[in-house]
Amino acid sequence: MPFAMMTADPVSGTLLLLAALWLAAKVGGELALRLHLPAVAGELGAGIVLAILHGRFSTIPDIAASSEAGLLASLGVVILMFAVGLESTVPQMLKTGLASLRVAVIGVLVPLALGMTGAWLVLPAGTNAVVDLFIGACLCATSIGISAQVLREKGAARGAEGRVIVGAAVIDDVLGLLVLVGVSSLVTVAGSGTGLPWGSLARTLGLAVGFLALALTLGRLVTPHLFRLANRFRSEQILLPTGLGFAFLLAWLGHVAGLAPIVGAYAAGLILEPAHIRVLEERELHSLEELVHPLVVTFAPLFFVLMGARVDPATLLDARTLALALVLAGLGTFGKFVAGFTAGKGLRSAVVGWGMVPRGEVGLIFVAAGSSLLLAGRPLMESWVQAGVVGALLLTTVIGPVGLGWALKRTTRES
Amino acid sequence: MPFAMMTADPVSGTLLLLAALWLAAKVGGELALRLHLPAVAGELGAGIVLAILHGRFSTIPDIAASSEAGLLASLGVVILMFAVGLESTVPQMLKTGLASLRVAVIGVLVPLALGMTGAWLVLPAGTNAVVDLFIGACLCATSIGISAQVLREKGAARGAEGRVIVGAAVIDDVLGLLVLVGVSSLVTVAGSGTGLPWGSLARTLGLAVGFLALALTLGRLVTPHLFRLANRFRSEQILLPTGLGFAFLLAWLGHVAGLAPIVGAYAAGLILEPAHIRVLEERELHSLEELVHPLVVTFAPLFFVLMGARVDPATLLDARTLALALVLAGLGTFGKFVAGFTAGKGLRSAVVGWGMVPRGEVGLIFVAAGSSLLLAGRPLMESWVQAGVVGALLLTTVIGPVGLGWALKRTTRES
Repeated sequence: MPFAMMTADPVSGTLLLLAALWLAAKVGGELALRLHLPAVAGELGAGIVLAILHGRFSTIPDIAASSEAGLLASLGVVILMFAVGLESTVPQMLKTGLASLRVAVIGVLVPLALGMTGAWLVLPAGTNAVVDLFIGACLCATSIGISAQVLREKGAARGAEGRVIVGAAVIDDVLGLLVLVGVSSLVTVAGSGTGLPWGSLARTLGLAVGFLALALTLGRLVTPHLFRLANRFRSEQILLPTGLGFAFLLAWLGHVAGLAPIVGAYAAGLILEPAHIRVLEERELHSLEELVHPLVVTFAPLFFVLMGARVDPATLLDARTLALALVLAGLGTFGKFVAGFTAGKGLRSAVVGWGMVPRGEVGLIFVAAGSSLLLAGRPLMESWVQAGVVGALLLTTVIGPVGLGWALKRTTRES
Repeated sequence: MPFAMMTADPVSGTLLLLAALWLAAKVGGELALRLHLPAVAGELGAGIVLAILHGRFSTIPDIAASSEAGLLASLGVVILMFAVGLESTVPQMLKTGLASLRVAVIGVLVPLALGMTGAWLVLPAGTNAVVDLFIGACLCATSIGISAQVLREKGAARGAEGRVIVGAAVIDDVLGLLVLVGVSSLVTVAGSGTGLPWGSLARTLGLAVGFLALALTLGRLVTPHLFRLANRFRSEQILLPTGLGFAFLLAWLGHVAGLAPIVGAYAAGLILEPAHIRVLEERELHSLEELVHPLVVTFAPLFFVLMGARVDPATLLDARTLALALVLAGLGTFGKFVAGFTAGKGLRSAVVGWGMVPRGEVGLIFVAAGSSLLLAGRPLMESWVQAGVVGALLLTTVIGPVGLGWALKRTTRES
């Protein structure tokens, strides 16, 4: 069958899928812009519409199941975080460090408590309190990718609030991880009766904090040498591969240390300072930010469309799931919004608060972790509970950018 | 096992792999440049070295087996061909149309005849002549990706020879397809005794030629409207997704018509004329070529490193395989080089000839097609024969750019 072999080119289907995803992202983004919402909300919406269409018409492919689209979307969010990191430097970060720490700590504790309460209210009486605690933990970590995109759209990524939000998101990723470790241990203890694994808990925290500390100190010392070495290459196209390679290496190292790859990519962008790469930028007639920009434009929308497409349309109709999703989304939004008011003087609390609202991939990783946990021989969360938590996370990804866009617009008018 | 779930992030391994591939590509390219070879030869060499290292040290991953790297490499070569297409327009193409046609026809017939002769000489006596014919067919189609990269490196992609080479490569892709269809039919006939399937043969040719004719006529009429529509979008980043989406759509359509996706992507670049997109380019302050450039820089090297990594190091040591590979590579190179002399007056024959030498993905698709064919119940090609043909194809990908770089340098000095 030579024809079958020749037409079985594996990439051509992906090419059509990508063209369709870009079209969906741009049409969704355009509709959102015309409704005065951030484009990213429209991209998420386009993904949800595609998921619904897939449920109705079998000819529409299941985008959420495409490993190719998943890979490119993951690369997209890593590159996006690198680009966001490039927009600030470590000295700028330190200025907002204390504000970020306050926002992060309050933004983990309040949603944790509120999420527990919400789960206790909605879940049937007699549910083990550990389940409520686990659901609260799922609401801890901010997904910075979405807010970063809104801040970039509105030209506010370099502002003080933008740095506080991103810094707090990095910190609450670490804190969220610690909460997950603790709660998972509690689940095991509740089932077995053994003591808490303080050793592994401390090791996880140490690794994550150690990676960030090393990256932001040692990393800053190494990068000038790295780019000086790259400058000795005769190739005309050395800046972008070196920059991206550095970002991907740090993303991988961060992952090895137990953090999400996007945290490492963000750290890489933060470390790279204009002074380190100026010679290469002058040689190639483009800044690194200019060179990374087309990659962000190409791949980041895929991430947002896919986030939307991962909503299971069937759960949109189950009353219990919907109730849990709405309650958790409301409390989760309120919990992060409150944290914004601890940012401090001179910062727009509403901007910081709304910026912390979206939960995404980290929360979804928590749910996935929970789905494999057993409590007294039964799954920790029933399937409708799990769908409700996922629904709440996805609702915050729509509420967050809408609120942030609104807060940015309102406060810009006032100032 | 929450930790196992959290560390099983599927993208982080790909991030490390990509960082390593960029490093290998840049180091290989740098060594090649210092040896006065084109960078792409060094990237191919880096891939071969990685494949050898994988054979020796099990800690080095098998890059050729990575589906993620394969996907990104395939996207890379499609984007590269789109960028090459953007550098010329249809009216320019028509100027060199007749020269391209001559080069393509001679460049298919001579390597076919020479390849048959070479296979007849090296293969054991008593081998069916259909096998020789099939091996000859594998040498027909030029892989334009590599020469396009060398021409770009040397700033000769917009020159007359560059257009003749690319045009001839597009035509010989169609001719090569026809030869494969014919030879595959012969193999079936040689085994069964039924007549030739003229109908399916004509249909395949008609589809391929029809696609190109439609793309270059109707496509040119549609694109101004497409980009005028895109210009009505308020999004700030519309030019690159629209351009890439258009290229990927045509690549997919070309694939449906039986052509390699790179041919459709090239046609898309050819169709897009500066006049169609000027308004969007002015609005976004960057030309489409400038926006596509970082994507080419990021993904095209992956294609070349992977091409090198797909060489099986074991075959580098088998005497029969080596002999077949060397004979076929020599004859295949000579056959395409001769075709360059039919380009016509005012063109550097050596540049055109060397530019046609590299065979790559299309030839490899032919080999894959042949590996599934049976002749009188036995595989058409024994495994060492298949390895030899693959080796010859890969040798031409090293010989081609070296020769082209040398021809460009020599003729530039003379002129």
